[in-house]
Amino acid sequence: MEQKQIDLALDEVRAALEAGHVLDAIAALIRLHPADRAEAFSDLNDEDQAALLPRLDIPTMADLLEELEDEHAADVAEVLPTERLADILDEMEPDEAADILGDLSPKRVAEALAEMEDANDVIPLLGYPDETAGGLMTTSYIALRPHTTAKQAISFLREVSPEEETPYYLNVIDRDRRLVGIVGLRELVIAEPDTMVEVFMDPSVLHVNTDTDQEEVARLMVRYNLAALPVVDHNNVLKGVITYDDLMDVLEEEATEDIYRLANVSDPDLSIDSPIGMSIRRRLPWLYLNTLTAFFASWVISQFESIIAQVAVLAVFLSVVAGLGGNSATQSLAIIVRAIALGELEIHEAWRTILKEAAVGLLQGISVGVVAGIGVYLWKGNAVMGVILGIALAGNILVAGIIGSLVPVLLKALRLDPALASSVLVTAVTDSTGFALFLTLAVIFLPHLS
Amino acid sequence: MEQKQIDLALDEVRAALEAGHVLDAIAALIRLHPADRAEAFSDLNDEDQAALLPRLDIPTMADLLEELEDEHAADVAEVLPTERLADILDEMEPDEAADILGDLSPKRVAEALAEMEDANDVIPLLGYPDETAGGLMTTSYIALRPHTTAKQAISFLREVSPEEETPYYLNVIDRDRRLVGIVGLRELVIAEPDTMVEVFMDPSVLHVNTDTDQEEVARLMVRYNLAALPVVDHNNVLKGVITYDDLMDVLEEEATEDIYRLANVSDPDLSIDSPIGMSIRRRLPWLYLNTLTAFFASWVISQFESIIAQVAVLAVFLSVVAGLGGNSATQSLAIIVRAIALGELEIHEAWRTILKEAAVGLLQGISVGVVAGIGVYLWKGNAVMGVILGIALAGNILVAGIIGSLVPVLLKALRLDPALASSVLVTAVTDSTGFALFLTLAVIFLPHLS
Repeated sequence: MEQKQIDLALDEVRAALEAGHVLDAIAALIRLHPADRAEAFSDLNDEDQAALLPRLDIPTMADLLEELEDEHAADVAEVLPTERLADILDEMEPDEAADILGDLSPKRVAEALAEMEDANDVIPLLGYPDETAGGLMTTSYIALRPHTTAKQAISFLREVSPEEETPYYLNVIDRDRRLVGIVGLRELVIAEPDTMVEVFMDPSVLHVNTDTDQEEVARLMVRYNLAALPVVDHNNVLKGVITYDDLMDVLEEEATEDIYRLANVSDPDLSIDSPIGMSIRRRLPWLYLNTLTAFFASWVISQFESIIAQVAVLAVFLSVVAGLGGNSATQSLAIIVRAIALGELEIHEAWRTILKEAAVGLLQGISVGVVAGIGVYLWKGNAVMGVILGIALAGNILVAGIIGSLVPVLLKALRLDPALASSVLVTAVTDSTGFALFLTLAVIFLPHLS
Repeated sequence: MEQKQIDLALDEVRAALEAGHVLDAIAALIRLHPADRAEAFSDLNDEDQAALLPRLDIPTMADLLEELEDEHAADVAEVLPTERLADILDEMEPDEAADILGDLSPKRVAEALAEMEDANDVIPLLGYPDETAGGLMTTSYIALRPHTTAKQAISFLREVSPEEETPYYLNVIDRDRRLVGIVGLRELVIAEPDTMVEVFMDPSVLHVNTDTDQEEVARLMVRYNLAALPVVDHNNVLKGVITYDDLMDVLEEEATEDIYRLANVSDPDLSIDSPIGMSIRRRLPWLYLNTLTAFFASWVISQFESIIAQVAVLAVFLSVVAGLGGNSATQSLAIIVRAIALGELEIHEAWRTILKEAAVGLLQGISVGVVAGIGVYLWKGNAVMGVILGIALAGNILVAGIIGSLVPVLLKALRLDPALASSVLVTAVTDSTGFALFLTLAVIFLPHLS
């Protein structure tokens, strides 16, 4: 739906720019929702972008920088006149402004901050790493004192007329700015006008520290259905608030990270729009690692070269053993990694899960082993080969269940990211085990094989 | 953090039940947040659960059923006295009540609805499939008429004193209940008391139909940062509202679905807590499919049995060709599937993405081919073998880039779920291509191989 609108607007913008009517082009762009506008802007060529940039007003520029991809926003911000950049950053939410500044050169950051009016809101945010609660929070929140009445609070709100993205929760703080409670806008509206905030605030407000990881932030907000989560320092002093709209981005980012790691793509920022050079730099290392592990598995096979020379048909079935082991290990891996990400797996109970995956592996292994063994017998008329392949498959799928669950649990226990247990590493184990098992059985049964 | 509290509460609950003090057990449970309480309750054995259930009050039971896993909630609801179940369902949000009823036997549903007071709020929701906007929305929303003043609206809110989960957006509807706008609670609070709602409402409110897929709902809410999204029927009549807390669950569910499908686990409801029998029923079919595809790949190898009998070392490197092709295809697959899920890939521009993945594949193929070729030469002292393996790897990784991106794009164009392009199907192609390429090269270069 919105794609059609974007395409229509783009046609209009391009035609207007062609005819030299910059204002018409801007009018066509402005009609789009800011998120769509940023996408349309990205689709324009450099020349068209350069023609529009100096003519967009400050609020439109602020929307644009907030919605553009990080790198593109940084490119645009890098070339703006300093004074204009400072005005735009002043217009933005402090957390968004901090994100833009975080991608600029140190010299440019210093220049922009020197020109900004609200630099004091933004500077405290610059020190927090991107993937922590401090990096996610905004400093533009509303705080009340416990003895304010509902009526006073509402007229205060009317006075400051908070901006669109301010959360629907109001923080209650004491004289030292320590967090003592939270009030929903709804409670405020329905409270009797003369009641004091402390009467209807929720004093046991859930909060996180500035250095809490964003994965934990996401888990808490989803688990407890929170629209906003206050962030405090180690003295319980309120530092900022994380709102549900930032959370949605985190949830998508964390999911992308897990999907990519399982698929051996180590950088969650990689997308279909990434330049080819960047894609290769981030993906090739995994393939080189995979080359190493594949050579290890092939070294296992090379130990059995003489029996393969005698019974060449063994080579035909090596890939069956490896393929099925790898796939069932990946099944276990995905289920365990996801459970850890969603906070469903407690490490001290993990042995039960590993035991269960082993049981699933054993039963699946027997099921697949029997079917594949019969298949080989029907195809090659060789019953002994069928039995060896069946046993090797059963054994390897059992190993797959254990390794696929053990490796992410171990990584988690070592406080490493369990999604690092990508299929490359786990299938290296199942490949080697499978080959060794299958070919050792072949050596034992050699007299009956041909 | 919360795990410790849950464990402490569990110890208390068990001790109290042991001593026959049911009320003390309930008190220990009640101190937990409803989400934690449900987890603690699930960890109790059947006997302890049965001792507690009849003594919990209606609001606590409602919280419990909302927070328990679907299947467990249905088990509990199935055994409650009908009158008690009806009271509990009346206490719940209509969408949550509908979810519970959706998992019960038809007879039980009829009995419960007959006893319920708010059956009329819930019945309209029972007809919508779970994964559509209709299945996600709640009917408990607040609607205003355009000519209401801000002051009237606020006293109306005070009067109905909406429940905790009611969204912070108020819908504006005409006399036929058609959606004409939306008003944030914040705009209402800061508006001049005598202004009419239609003056400060947003008339171009984004909305979806009852049959819109939940993936599209999630995409829109994330893209436009919405805390609530109205749902209308085909006559634009307001039917319900989807709120951000439901969205967070959808985002997690969709991410789980994508991760699982890529890993050949077809059921997103599968988790580490699923019974072994269910795990096997859902996972084994993929392994059987994989057995078929693996046999196809091994049939390709069997066409070359005679050359393998002559040059057994070829068998050693087959797994290297297959492994690297499979892994690079999975990289492409993950990036494309994720881009489609996040709405970043437009089908009519997909040829560009496929071309790019082909280019990445070619360059990665050459890089890996050169390194692996040299590796083989150093290990086996056989330059020709190094060259064939290098060329086969380069070719197969190129094919992997094309297949890994083409298959999900085709599925999407055919309106099937692109995540169905699981690694099983894609690696079946890369395995077969890789084997054919490598062994054909071996036949051509045979005179120089040994």
